[in-house]
Amino acid sequence: MKALQIVVIGGVAAGASFAARARRLDESAHITVIERGPDVSFANCGLPYHIGGEIPTRDVLAVQTPASLKALLNLNVRTMSEATSIDRSGKRVLVRDLASGQSEWLHYDKLMLAPGAAPVTPSLPGIEDARIFTLRNLVDMDRIAAASESGMRAVVVGGGFIGLEMAEQLYRKGLSVELVQVKPQVLPQLDAKIARMLENELLHNDIGLRLGDQIVRFEGKGEALHCHLATGGVLEADFVVMSIGVRPESGLALDAGLTLGERGHIVVNDFMQTSDLDIYAAGDAVETSERVLGGRSAVPLGGPANRQGRVAADHIFMKERARPYPGSVGTAIVRVFEMAAGITGWCEERLKQAGRNYGTITVNDYQHATYFPGAKPLTLKILWDADTGVLLGAQAAGYEGVDKRLDVLATAITARMKVEELCHLELAYAPPFGSAKDIVNLAGFAATNVIDGLVDTVEDLPTEKNVQIVDVRGRAVSDASPVPGAINIPFPTLRENLDKLDRDRPVVTVCALGKTSYFASRLLAQNGFDVKSLAGGAKVNINPRNSKKM
Amino acid sequence: MKALQIVVIGGVAAGASFAARARRLDESAHITVIERGPDVSFANCGLPYHIGGEIPTRDVLAVQTPASLKALLNLNVRTMSEATSIDRSGKRVLVRDLASGQSEWLHYDKLMLAPGAAPVTPSLPGIEDARIFTLRNLVDMDRIAAASESGMRAVVVGGGFIGLEMAEQLYRKGLSVELVQVKPQVLPQLDAKIARMLENELLHNDIGLRLGDQIVRFEGKGEALHCHLATGGVLEADFVVMSIGVRPESGLALDAGLTLGERGHIVVNDFMQTSDLDIYAAGDAVETSERVLGGRSAVPLGGPANRQGRVAADHIFMKERARPYPGSVGTAIVRVFEMAAGITGWCEERLKQAGRNYGTITVNDYQHATYFPGAKPLTLKILWDADTGVLLGAQAAGYEGVDKRLDVLATAITARMKVEELCHLELAYAPPFGSAKDIVNLAGFAATNVIDGLVDTVEDLPTEKNVQIVDVRGRAVSDASPVPGAINIPFPTLRENLDKLDRDRPVVTVCALGKTSYFASRLLAQNGFDVKSLAGGAKVNINPRNSKKM
Repeated sequence: MKALQIVVIGGVAAGASFAARARRLDESAHITVIERGPDVSFANCGLPYHIGGEIPTRDVLAVQTPASLKALLNLNVRTMSEATSIDRSGKRVLVRDLASGQSEWLHYDKLMLAPGAAPVTPSLPGIEDARIFTLRNLVDMDRIAAASESGMRAVVVGGGFIGLEMAEQLYRKGLSVELVQVKPQVLPQLDAKIARMLENELLHNDIGLRLGDQIVRFEGKGEALHCHLATGGVLEADFVVMSIGVRPESGLALDAGLTLGERGHIVVNDFMQTSDLDIYAAGDAVETSERVLGGRSAVPLGGPANRQGRVAADHIFMKERARPYPGSVGTAIVRVFEMAAGITGWCEERLKQAGRNYGTITVNDYQHATYFPGAKPLTLKILWDADTGVLLGAQAAGYEGVDKRLDVLATAITARMKVEELCHLELAYAPPFGSAKDIVNLAGFAATNVIDGLVDTVEDLPTEKNVQIVDVRGRAVSDASPVPGAINIPFPTLRENLDKLDRDRPVVTVCALGKTSYFASRLLAQNGFDVKSLAGGAKVNINPRNSKKM
Repeated sequence: MKALQIVVIGGVAAGASFAARARRLDESAHITVIERGPDVSFANCGLPYHIGGEIPTRDVLAVQTPASLKALLNLNVRTMSEATSIDRSGKRVLVRDLASGQSEWLHYDKLMLAPGAAPVTPSLPGIEDARIFTLRNLVDMDRIAAASESGMRAVVVGGGFIGLEMAEQLYRKGLSVELVQVKPQVLPQLDAKIARMLENELLHNDIGLRLGDQIVRFEGKGEALHCHLATGGVLEADFVVMSIGVRPESGLALDAGLTLGERGHIVVNDFMQTSDLDIYAAGDAVETSERVLGGRSAVPLGGPANRQGRVAADHIFMKERARPYPGSVGTAIVRVFEMAAGITGWCEERLKQAGRNYGTITVNDYQHATYFPGAKPLTLKILWDADTGVLLGAQAAGYEGVDKRLDVLATAITARMKVEELCHLELAYAPPFGSAKDIVNLAGFAATNVIDGLVDTVEDLPTEKNVQIVDVRGRAVSDASPVPGAINIPFPTLRENLDKLDRDRPVVTVCALGKTSYFASRLLAQNGFDVKSLAGGAKVNINPRNSKKM
C-alpha cells in the first residue's frame, strides 16, 4: 500500500495528539505538521503559571521541538508556516513560510484541521495600545511576563477561567490587580452562589472586582494606561490582559466551503470528519455532539482536544474498528488562591434557558472526616432531570477535593446515573481521604429526600412577612451572625419549644450548612407544620460580601 | 398509629446511622440503643491516628454521647449494656446492665442488629500477656496509647489496613516498629506489585517487615515481651498490637436461629432484613450481595455500614418506597507515610481463583501535569472482563490523587462501564489538578490497545534465552539501573538501529513506565518484529527491594 500523505494544520494539543497517534498506528505515513507560531506541542494550559512564577522554568512548557518530534515520531514539523488555502478537489493545501514569504502546495490524502481558537479582541478606542495583551502562546506569555516584571498595576478583563488564573498569578507576583467582568458574576458557566465563593476568595486576596462593568475606552496617559469603565470610573494600569473569550479559527475551513456551526465552529461528525470526509478537525475550533442532553457543543479545553485528535487518527487508520468521540460533557475547574471551583455537565441557568424540568440541591460538608486534622469546607450542588432523576450537572467549590468530586460526578453523568445512585457510590474512605458518608453520598441522600417529598427546600431566604424563619444554629453563632428576620431556636431545644411557633404560619428553617435545618424540617413537618428548609444554609445564602465594602 | 418500638443493638456506625435515619422518618417511634461499651457513635476509623498523635484531642473521636443523642434525636441510649438473648416469638430482647448485672426484657416491633466485628485473637502460647492488645474501641485505644507512651519497641501483627495504620502511627510517635505478616505481601486484597510499593514505603521509613512469617509463641522476659517467629527469630517488644483480621459478632444472631453465611456473617436481603423479617442487621457483622460479579460479600468498612443502616430505616418507615442496598463493591484505601494505595472491585488473584477470563494493564503517570510543580508518580492497574470489556477492578498506588482515581473507577465499576469508556471520561483538568489526558484515560487507552491487538504485553521480564530484551530508556538511566539481560537502544534512536536486532527472535521492550516501551513495540511490530511490551515498565517490575538488605 502506498504510504498515506497526511497534513496537520496546528501543532499544539489536538494536532500534536493526532500526529502522535497516527504515527503509532502507521510507521509508513508521511506526516507533516504546519504550525503558524514558532513553537509546537507546548503546554498552553501552563502559560499563566509561568507568568506568575509558579512554574519557574520556561523550558518545561516547551514540551517538544521539531527535532524531538522528528526523532520520536518521524514527523515533519514546519513552524512559522501558515496554511492559507485548501484546494479540496486537488487535495492540497497552500502553505506559506512566514520567514521567506514563499508559498508551496502540499498534497494530502487526509487533512487534519487543528487551528485552535484565538482570544477575542474587542474593537474599543485605544485597543491598539501595545500595553494591552492577550494570552495564547509562548510569545504572548513572554510579553506579559516582561510587562509584569516592570509594571505594578494590572487590569485583567474577563472573569472566565483564564482571566481568574491571570488575576491570581499576577497578584501572586506582587502586582495590584483589578478584574473587570461584564457579567454580574465571575465564571458565568457556574451558578451565581457557587461563583460567589470564588468572588469572596478573590476579594479576600485583595483582587479588585468590577462585576457588571466593562471597559469602553483605553487611553494612554504618559506612563499609565487609563481604562475607562462603562460605569464611569477609570482604572489606571501599567498593562492590561484581555481574556474575554475565544473564537474558533475557522476562517480557512470557511473559505474551503466546509460546514460551520451557528457560532462559527467547524462541524464534525463523531469520527471528527468535517463535511469533507477526507478533512478531519479537532480541538478548540470544532463543534461536536453534546453528551449530557444531546445537541451540539464546543468545549475549548485541553482534554477534549487531545482525545478528539486521537479519535481522528483511529478513524483514518483503524477504519471501522475506530470508536467514535462520545461527545463533550463540559467539565472544567479553576484554582483561585486557596480555593478551587468547577463544573461538570449543565448549570442551572442553562437548564432554565432550555426550559428543562430539573431538580437541584446544594450540600455542604468537608473533604474528609472532620475529626481528622485539616478538614476544610466543601460545597456541592447537583442538578437532575425532575422527570427521570438522571443527573445532569454538578458544581463544587472548596479548598480541597473539589476536583475529586467533579470527576466522580462527571463519571456518573457519563454513565447516565440517577441521583439516587449517588447514595451508594462506594468511595475510598480512610480518615485522611474522605468520610464514611462522602459529600457525593450526601448529595444523593439530599436529592432523594427531595424526590421522596421528605423535605421541601427553598433556594433563598423568604421575604414574605407571614413566614416564620427559624434559625436552628447554636445561640452564640446566631448572635454573632444573625439571620435577618429569624428567631433562634437551637436544634437540640426544638422539640421542647414547639409552642414558640405558630402552627398556622409557614416556617423556613435555617442552619449553617443546610443539614440541621433539614433535620429541623423533618421534626416540624411531623408535628404538623408547613415547613421548608433553606438549601445550602447560611453558608451559600448569607453573603459575607454584602457586608464588606467593595 | 401506635408508636413503633425499635431496639438497636450496637451504637456505632451502622447502629447510629440507622437510629438517626429512623428518627428523621418518624418522630413518634420509641428508639432504644443498646451498646456494650461505654461509648456510642465514636469515630472508630480515627483510633490509630489518636494513638499516633496525628489526631491530638481524644474528644473529637467521641462524636456523640447518650445525652447529645437524646437532645438531637430523642434516642434512649444505654451504654455498658449487653443484649444476651433474643426471644423472636415474643419479640423481645434480654438486656443486661453490665454495671449492676441486672437483666431486663425489652419489647421490639423492629430489631436492628449492628454488633460489628471483633478483632481475631489467635490462641497462641502467651497470648494472655497484658502487653498484647487489639484495637476496636476507645478503651483499647487508650490502652495502646498508654503503652506507646512508655514503650519504645512495638510489634504489629497483621499487614492489613489497620495493621499498616498502626505501624505508621507508632513509628510516627517515635517507636521502633516491626510488622509481622503471615502472607508474603502486605494488604493481600491488592495484587503483589501494587502492594510492593507500600512495602518499599514502609522499608524506606525503617519499619521492620517480616513477610511470610508469623508469631508462634509469646514469652514475657522481664521488661520485654519475646515474640517467637515461625522462622526461628525472636522480636523483643514492649507491647504488641494484633491486627490479623476481624470476625463478625454474630453469636446472638446464631443463638436466635437467624441464618448465617459460610464465614459466620448474618445473612440479609437487599433491605437488610435477616431471615426473621422483623429483625434487620447492618454493618461489619453482615453479608450482603456483591456488586461487581454478583454473589455475596462481607465488607467490614465504615462506608457500607453507615449506608446499610440507612437502608434498613428506610425500609421500616418508607415501606415499598425504600430503595434496596445495591451491594458492596469493596473499595478501600490506606495511607502509609507519604504514600497511599487502594483498591476497588476485584483484584487479579481473586479473578484467577474464580476462574474468570480477564484482561489487565498497569499504567504509570503523575497525579497532574508534569510541568506543574509538585508532580508525583502514580500507578494504576485495571482489570476487565476479557469477553465483554466491562471493568471489574482497579488498584492504585502513589503519593497524591490515589483516592480520586479509585473513586472515579469505583463509580465506573458501579455503572458497569467498559474499559473503552474510560478513554473519554471528561475529568476536571487544570494544571494543579490533573492532566489533559488523565491516568484514568491512559488506562482506558492502554486497555483498548490491548483489546484491539495494537500491543501485546508481558507482566514480567522474560527469562527465555531466545528473547531479546530491548531497554529503550536513555543511556544514562539505563547505565545507572540496568535491566537484567537487556540491550539498550534509546527510543529516539530505535528507527535507525533496527539492524541491531534479530528479526527471527522475539523482542520484549522495556522502559521506565511502560509507555515508551509501548511506542517502541508499535514501531517494531510494523517493521515485522514479534514484539511484546513490559506492562508497567521497570517501575513495577524491577524491584528496588531486591537490591536492599532486609
